[in-house]
Amino acid sequence: MQVTFLGTSSMVPTKDRNQSGIFIRYKNEGILIDCGEGTQRQFKQKGIPLTKITKILISHWHGDHVFGLPGVMSTLGSAEYEKTLEIYGPKGTKKHFEAMFKAFVFDNRIKYEIKEIKSGKILENKDIYIETLPLEHGVTTMGYSLVEKDIRHVDAKKAKKLGIPNGPLMGKLQRNETVSHKGKKINPKDVTYIEKGKKITVIADTVPCKNAVKLAKEADLLICEATYDSKLQEKGEAYGHMTGKQAGLIANQANVKKLVLTHFSARYKTTHEVEEDAKGVFSNSIAAKDFMVFDV
Amino acid sequence: MQVTFLGTSSMVPTKDRNQSGIFIRYKNEGILIDCGEGTQRQFKQKGIPLTKITKILISHWHGDHVFGLPGVMSTLGSAEYEKTLEIYGPKGTKKHFEAMFKAFVFDNRIKYEIKEIKSGKILENKDIYIETLPLEHGVTTMGYSLVEKDIRHVDAKKAKKLGIPNGPLMGKLQRNETVSHKGKKINPKDVTYIEKGKKITVIADTVPCKNAVKLAKEADLLICEATYDSKLQEKGEAYGHMTGKQAGLIANQANVKKLVLTHFSARYKTTHEVEEDAKGVFSNSIAAKDFMVFDV
Repeated sequence: MQVTFLGTSSMVPTKDRNQSGIFIRYKNEGILIDCGEGTQRQFKQKGIPLTKITKILISHWHGDHVFGLPGVMSTLGSAEYEKTLEIYGPKGTKKHFEAMFKAFVFDNRIKYEIKEIKSGKILENKDIYIETLPLEHGVTTMGYSLVEKDIRHVDAKKAKKLGIPNGPLMGKLQRNETVSHKGKKINPKDVTYIEKGKKITVIADTVPCKNAVKLAKEADLLICEATYDSKLQEKGEAYGHMTGKQAGLIANQANVKKLVLTHFSARYKTTHEVEEDAKGVFSNSIAAKDFMVFDV
Repeated sequence: MQVTFLGTSSMVPTKDRNQSGIFIRYKNEGILIDCGEGTQRQFKQKGIPLTKITKILISHWHGDHVFGLPGVMSTLGSAEYEKTLEIYGPKGTKKHFEAMFKAFVFDNRIKYEIKEIKSGKILENKDIYIETLPLEHGVTTMGYSLVEKDIRHVDAKKAKKLGIPNGPLMGKLQRNETVSHKGKKINPKDVTYIEKGKKITVIADTVPCKNAVKLAKEADLLICEATYDSKLQEKGEAYGHMTGKQAGLIANQANVKKLVLTHFSARYKTTHEVEEDAKGVFSNSIAAKDFMVFDV
């Protein structure tokens, strides 16, 4: 999975930071999580064709997470986008989209499908599943985890020792099926091993909450809002946001491998203070910058 | 009057060109004409506080001219903006705004007033007036002219010769009133002269039309859409747009002093071709770039 940060500002964008937008590529999927104003142009800046988007996950309907949706929908409408765009968001997402299409003139519309989600698994295919849990931010706000399923590999050496040829037998073993070869039963356990699937969790706007920890459990990469540093914790509580330290504590409790902070207040010229704030409690922390890429 | 280009792209923004946005400053007024996606961040990039906006003129409701409105309204809502924002646009503008406020969650709203306009003078104060005429673009699209009123100045030498002291008499003469001084009638004509007010015309999306010429008549600066160059004139006609040459012909017919082209198709890496296309018929033409400033 490859994560590209298209925007790392909170409500008010700055010279260096666009509003929220995270693009995750995995095989043929292009999953955009939130879509602040200017997101389509950030795709351009980064050289990623907008048509690579297959799914949009919306955390909540505060402007800085969704103002870029009309632009994305409009530009995809003028492109040769043959797919049906899948959109996932909290209750109300359908109504918001209806109003959006009334608010502006759209000449061409793509095919799209909206699913309003509550909690648990929201989609699953043979490679990955996505789950969601509500966070705590005043308006309904969803966190998301993208979980790659474990992959069973055949151990080539062991398979060779048992004389198993390449072909259907190998496929069956890989799918965890017992096979017969030269009159002998072969258990998948004997010739395969498991590669643990990767997990990415995205915690958008929230105060610290149990669901954030639950959703992020054992993630390889936790992307977490950290609007302020600890000096402004009170402000964070008042506006439903977190500090770098609070994000670090979630990373700790969830036992994640790496923490990437985002959604910074416009008051920070550099995000050094917020990063240091998180590092105080969770050393493998980094403040994202626009266009940073993480491979997981 | 000072004109700042905040965006010069047509529908699809490019790396170098944001969607439409023109900011005109005159005394205490800050007039934003159209507001494509990303306009608020362009203000940031250019170092102009968003709170300088006093009026917004909307040409039409195609996305590339209005997708930035929610962001501007939202950021002004979180700023200390005490003014009532005046918004002018074609019929339907009120409904579009209502839908916009349903489409996204707005925590704070500024005071604003929408006027749906048709043609003629839409506002006037002691210094300037603004007039509008409909253009031809499929959906209702308005062109705008900002016209500074002529200024009467007292000729200091002539006034001195007649022995007129500084003070109320001077003020009256400047306001074109006849005065008495030492038993003698003094006609304003005798001691004052007229400085012609400046005029800026903005012609948004349209095919060539009479109203564009009428509105731009004798303008000091004509800002005109020129989406394509002449090689793509047919495409222009099909989509309701103009070429550089067609914009140049309007500049010619309207006898303007200077032509600035904008609203370029994303296909152009540089806008050299479009500029040359206009220059072929109107030599004082220039293709605007984002953040260019023109003093009029």
